Amino acid sequence: MSLLLVGTMAFDALETPFGKVDRIIGGSATYAAWAASCFTKPIQLVSIVGGDFPDTEKTELEERSVNFEGVEVVPDGKCFFWSGKYHMDLNTRDTLVTELNVLADFNPKVPAGYQGADYVMLGNLAPGIQISVLNQLEKKPKLVIMDTMNYWIDTAMDDLTKVLGMIDLLMINDSEARQLTGEHSLVKAAKKIQGMGTKYVIIKKGEHGALLFYGDKIFSAPAMPLEDVFDPTGAGDTFAGGFIGYLARIDDISFEAMKAAIIMGSSLASYCVEKFGPIRMKEINAADIQNRVNEFISLANFEIRN
Amino acid sequence: MSLLLVGTMAFDALETPFGKVDRIIGGSATYAAWAASCFTKPIQLVSIVGGDFPDTEKTELEERSVNFEGVEVVPDGKCFFWSGKYHMDLNTRDTLVTELNVLADFNPKVPAGYQGADYVMLGNLAPGIQISVLNQLEKKPKLVIMDTMNYWIDTAMDDLTKVLGMIDLLMINDSEARQLTGEHSLVKAAKKIQGMGTKYVIIKKGEHGALLFYGDKIFSAPAMPLEDVFDPTGAGDTFAGGFIGYLARIDDISFEAMKAAIIMGSSLASYCVEKFGPIRMKEINAADIQNRVNEFISLANFEIRN
Repeated sequence: MSLLLVGTMAFDALETPFGKVDRIIGGSATYAAWAASCFTKPIQLVSIVGGDFPDTEKTELEERSVNFEGVEVVPDGKCFFWSGKYHMDLNTRDTLVTELNVLADFNPKVPAGYQGADYVMLGNLAPGIQISVLNQLEKKPKLVIMDTMNYWIDTAMDDLTKVLGMIDLLMINDSEARQLTGEHSLVKAAKKIQGMGTKYVIIKKGEHGALLFYGDKIFSAPAMPLEDVFDPTGAGDTFAGGFIGYLARIDDISFEAMKAAIIMGSSLASYCVEKFGPIRMKEINAADIQNRVNEFISLANFEIRN
Repeated sequence: MSLLLVGTMAFDALETPFGKVDRIIGGSATYAAWAASCFTKPIQLVSIVGGDFPDTEKTELEERSVNFEGVEVVPDGKCFFWSGKYHMDLNTRDTLVTELNVLADFNPKVPAGYQGADYVMLGNLAPGIQISVLNQLEKKPKLVIMDTMNYWIDTAMDDLTKVLGMIDLLMINDSEARQLTGEHSLVKAAKKIQGMGTKYVIIKKGEHGALLFYGDKIFSAPAMPLEDVFDPTGAGDTFAGGFIGYLARIDDISFEAMKAAIIMGSSLASYCVEKFGPIRMKEINAADIQNRVNEFISLANFEIRN
C-alpha cells in the first residue's frame, strides 16, 4: 500500500558520551523513510531541502523506492540544521543550535502523483503544516499517524488541538503526554488525548518501551534492554516509520496489527541507536530485523501454568 | 512445597495524595505471606513482633496455613513502626518516622519444624540477619530469593556482598541496582550483580514493570497501567511473595517458570496498591487473580505476521 511521509530532511551535529559527529544526515522524514522502506514501497516523501542536500543520500533512498517528487529543493538555501548534546543517561539532551534555514518557509505541496495514499505519517512539524498536508489529500487515508513535541504544545496549542481531531493516531513521549494533558497517570493522559479526537494513542517511554491505547484496550510493548545506546537521535522517527511501514505492508489497521507494528518499529529503533545518525539503518537487512524481532518475542513472551 | 518467609511484621502510618491512615498492619513478611498464601501452603514465617501485634491479624494468616512458630513475640515490646508520606507521583516518598522497637534486637531463630524448606524468601532486613537465617538451614533450598534497599547499600556493603554470594535471586529496584553497581545501564547493572554470585536478578521498575536476568536471557514484564495507585506500600513485598509462592506451588525454578511467576507477582501487586496497606490483599480471591492475569496476557501478548 502506498505510504506518504511528511517531515524534515536535515543535517545534525551530535555529541553523545561515546563520540561526536559534526555533520550527519538527519531529519524525521529521513529516518522514517529508511525505516518504512524496510517493509513497504513505494514511499512518497514530502519535505524541503537546500542545495546542500547530498545527491548520494537521495540516490540511496530512491534505490529503496522512496519517491522525491514531493521534496522541494531550494538550490540557494540550506537544509534545516540541529545540533544537540546528550547527557550521560542519554534520556535528556541540550539543543545547542537550531537553524531553520529552508524549513522557515516550508509550505508543503502534495504532488498529484501522491494522491490516494492509504497510509500517512506526519512527522514532527508545526501543526499548521500538518493540517495543510491533510487538507490537500483528496481521498481519506486508511490511517494517519503523527508525532509532535513539547515546542508545539507550548507555542501552537490551537493548531495542535485542531490536527488531533483530524488524525487517527498520535505518537508522543511520556513527558509530552503529561504536559499536553496535565495528567501524571499515562492512562488518564491517553484518555484525555482520545477525548481530543485521536482514537489511537502511542505513548513512548524510551528505555521502558511504549503503550498503545485504543478504547479501553492497552498494549504494553517492552524496549530491548541495551547495554549501550550509542546515539538516540532518530529513534522515535525510526520507530514511527517502521510502525506505519509494517502496517502498510500487511494493510491492516486492527489493534492486533498495531501491536505487531510496535514490535517492528521497536526492533528498527533498537538498531538505529547503535551508531550515529542513520548509519546503522543503512546496514541492516531483513535477516537482522527478523533476528531482533525474535529477541523481542523471547523478551516479552510468557506462559502461565496453573 | 514448603516456603520459608523472613521479614518484618510491623505497623505503618501512611499518607498518600488520596488519604491517610494512622496505624495499619504492614511489614515485608506480612505482605509476602498474604501474597504467597494465594498460591501455596504451608508458609513458615520467621519474624519478630511486640505484644501489640493483633491476634486477629495472626488468626487471619493462620487460616491461610501461615505458621507462626518462628515469629518471636516480645510481650512488653512494640512492633517495628514506619511512617511515610508519598509525593504526588507516588514514586517517591519521605520517611517521617522509623521506630525499630523489637526489630532492634531481632536475632532470628529457624525452628526445627521449618527445616527442609525448599523455597526461601529473605525480606528486606539487615544483610547480617539474612546471612544468619541461611546459616541455620540444614538443607540447601531449591531457591533463595532476597530483597534489599539503599540503606543497606550505604551502611552494610560487606555483609550485603557476602549474602549476594549465598542466594539465587536478588530483587532490587532500578535506582538501587544503579547505586549498588555504579552502572546506569540496567543490563550492565544486572551483569555486575550476577558477577557478585547471584545467578538471577529481578530489577523492579515500578510503573514500568520488571526485568528478569539469567545468564544472557532477559524477560521484560509489563506493569499493569493503572489510572490511580492509591497506596504503593507493600507492592514490592507482595510482588516477591506472589513470585515465590507461585514457584513453590508449581515447584519449578526454570527461567520460563520465573517469567510466569513475575506475572503472578505483578498481578497481586496491582491489587495491593488499590487500597491502604494489605486491605485489598485480604479481599481478593482466586477468580480475581485469574482475571488480572488474563489482563496481563492481553496487555503483553502480540503476534507477528509477515
